Amino acid sequence: MAAAHTVAPSAPSSVSLGPAVALSCRECGERVPLGPVFACASCFGPLETAYRFPDEDPQALRRRIEAGPASIWRYAPLLPVPADVADRPNLNPGFTKLVRAGNLARELGVTGGLFIKDDSGNPTHSFKDRVVAIAVEAARAFGFTTLSCSSTGNLAGAVGAAAARAGLRSCVFIPHDLEAGKVVMAAVYGGDLVGIEGSYDDVNRFCSELIGDPLGEGWGFVNVNLRPYYAEGSKTLAYEICEQLGWQLPDQIVVPIASGSQLTKIDKGLRELIALGLVEDRPYRIFGAQAEGCSPVSRAFKDGHDVVRPVRPDTIAKSLAIGNPADGPYVLDIARRTGGAVEDVTDPEITDAIRLLARTEGIFAETAGGVTVGVTRKLIAFGQLDPSLTTVVLNTGDGLKTLDAVAGGPTVVIRPSLEAFRAVEL
Amino acid sequence: MAAAHTVAPSAPSSVSLGPAVALSCRECGERVPLGPVFACASCFGPLETAYRFPDEDPQALRRRIEAGPASIWRYAPLLPVPADVADRPNLNPGFTKLVRAGNLARELGVTGGLFIKDDSGNPTHSFKDRVVAIAVEAARAFGFTTLSCSSTGNLAGAVGAAAARAGLRSCVFIPHDLEAGKVVMAAVYGGDLVGIEGSYDDVNRFCSELIGDPLGEGWGFVNVNLRPYYAEGSKTLAYEICEQLGWQLPDQIVVPIASGSQLTKIDKGLRELIALGLVEDRPYRIFGAQAEGCSPVSRAFKDGHDVVRPVRPDTIAKSLAIGNPADGPYVLDIARRTGGAVEDVTDPEITDAIRLLARTEGIFAETAGGVTVGVTRKLIAFGQLDPSLTTVVLNTGDGLKTLDAVAGGPTVVIRPSLEAFRAVEL
Ligand SMILES: [Zn+2]
Ligand SMILES: [Zn+2]
Repeated sequence: MAAAHTVAPSAPSSVSLGPAVALSCRECGERVPLGPVFACASCFGPLETAYRFPDEDPQALRRRIEAGPASIWRYAPLLPVPADVADRPNLNPGFTKLVRAGNLARELGVTGGLFIKDDSGNPTHSFKDRVVAIAVEAARAFGFTTLSCSSTGNLAGAVGAAAARAGLRSCVFIPHDLEAGKVVMAAVYGGDLVGIEGSYDDVNRFCSELIGDPLGEGWGFVNVNLRPYYAEGSKTLAYEICEQLGWQLPDQIVVPIASGSQLTKIDKGLRELIALGLVEDRPYRIFGAQAEGCSPVSRAFKDGHDVVRPVRPDTIAKSLAIGNPADGPYVLDIARRTGGAVEDVTDPEITDAIRLLARTEGIFAETAGGVTVGVTRKLIAFGQLDPSLTTVVLNTGDGLKTLDAVAGGPTVVIRPSLEAFRAVEL
Repeated sequence: MAAAHTVAPSAPSSVSLGPAVALSCRECGERVPLGPVFACASCFGPLETAYRFPDEDPQALRRRIEAGPASIWRYAPLLPVPADVADRPNLNPGFTKLVRAGNLARELGVTGGLFIKDDSGNPTHSFKDRVVAIAVEAARAFGFTTLSCSSTGNLAGAVGAAAARAGLRSCVFIPHDLEAGKVVMAAVYGGDLVGIEGSYDDVNRFCSELIGDPLGEGWGFVNVNLRPYYAEGSKTLAYEICEQLGWQLPDQIVVPIASGSQLTKIDKGLRELIALGLVEDRPYRIFGAQAEGCSPVSRAFKDGHDVVRPVRPDTIAKSLAIGNPADGPYVLDIARRTGGAVEDVTDPEITDAIRLLARTEGIFAETAGGVTVGVTRKLIAFGQLDPSLTTVVLNTGDGLKTLDAVAGGPTVVIRPSLEAFRAVEL
């Protein structure tokens, strides 16, 4: 575990992050004031944002949300952000499409309603824009002037773009041998981009050192010292899905697992909506989806274990390739508590599922979307996911970023003549 | 000019495309019934959709639009589509973000309000989703079962995706030597993809032959025999910009020119809003933007000519590389009538402008967006665009599709140590 405390900038005496009132330890419950800290000083457990929510009539709150902007900021009353967040320069991510996937439902035999929550519609085309947008507000609140992260892909672009819009400096750390396409996307926003000679693990280790050093003063690492805020961004997926279903819980939801944070925050979001009376309280099931080449949580689920044994990732689903997922044990809890499951699919199954989704719904998903669609198909085949119930499947990124996963060419090549075309069997 | 008539499928006796009542010739005004025709039988001029719009109180119409879906279908009363269009399986494109570009405005010295209309937010990340969505409804109305086009990029993906969602077959024709990345995007939606041995011109010539042949029976070519409907999709850019400005006309708008169709339809849309009383009638200026390597309209504008002399394109802005733009003369009319201009920028200026937009606003634009931003800067420098007026600049596509335009690498590469990082000058 990295150092729990960070070199703080000249922190404002009172931090105003909307309904957020403190950070609390997920393990021992200890509370600390809002600040750029991420691990409990007593037990080293992860800190998460604690709230005091508006004591408001649910109907009135719903109407207030519905009248809000077409972005995650419509849920500002439920997020660790200032009330005027929508008026600040930011990418305004979220409120992406919930696509009724009738063609895919027919192929998979889903009769209860099948939906794709398509987060490729975000500004930099992945769900990372949601979490980074919250981190930006925390960075501003704590007086940070540089936004930073380690990344192998989606996060680098999301941080670079968000910092540019917000007028913050950015400095992103990547492995020096990252694919050229991803480097272009990370570099184009004009922040500093530092290649580190070593693996992604080396990059992370370096960032942990930097956070504890005076060199890192004034730096907000979105997924380290700003993580308790950053992670809350994933709650907005839960909020949007329920609002887009007409303020109803989905019966079943299939979520990809990288660190596991997204799945735990979706569960948190659903429980908040119930507690606030914004949706009717009824059972829902959360399913986790991994690539077989990085399936430590799926393995633990199937083996009936409470702990997750780290693995060395080897899969085309790079955005999910975290071999030691920090929130793995919480994911296991949630899947078991809600009557869900955790399943995995092979790389060929991922590619097949990307093609299936594209062919049926015209949605070109990142490999992570191939994982969730592939797992959905598998869970139905195994009788673990009930096709007669309303089911939401997450696509968290864009196929344009993982083109290598679906190499493909023309059906046929011909001379430019009707003669030649007539001879073709399509 | 290709054959004016197409082999019609078993056409329904009465076509219902909302407020569209006929096609009318842009040159001689002759009217023909709605159908899959694109050129006037009398004068070979281009046909365009003619409407009978609702005789409705403007306030009531505004409210009806505002209560509609967050897509182009909120403007269904003004488009050649059936009233229930939003309930049909389709990609629901449009209603993309109008971004207040405060950082860019400061760099360019614009004080009157600068906005980027960011169409990279569409389902396949270009404005083509708008036009194809309209073509799909026309295809359905005329009983076509195959959606087709010739394409070198954005259009192929838009057609493949739209057909998949709509449950239509698709068959897209591309030059056989198209870049691998574009081929993947065109192929992933599972339609037929036919490589043609030859140039893009050869592909187009082949498609024209196919339309007149029984082989092409039941085929809707979105930008040929469905063009009078397809082209109307660009009106929605005008509608959205005005609604997002609070039902106001922009003072100035900068539009990229490929065929010129988009610019003419934006003008048409603005004039419709004025005629319907949805916005106050006051002057607006429309500016056209080309790449120097394909600037026949800009050249004609500067030379004071009414006709456009075709050129052979040579520019990184491939999506604008139409050497013989069909709507060029209409573009010249509009730029001159509204007090606008047509300007062009070099390839290095395009790349610079892509970087400028990314660095200031976190928007990663396609080369076409580099063209409009670059031309905006140039027009301000030349005193042709008034920086004290409200200005909207279009970004019609996504930088992920033209990564080669902005090749870039890390600022620096270092060993994973604080020592090494301390030695770096950022
Ligand atoms: Zn603790
Ligand atoms: Zn005519």
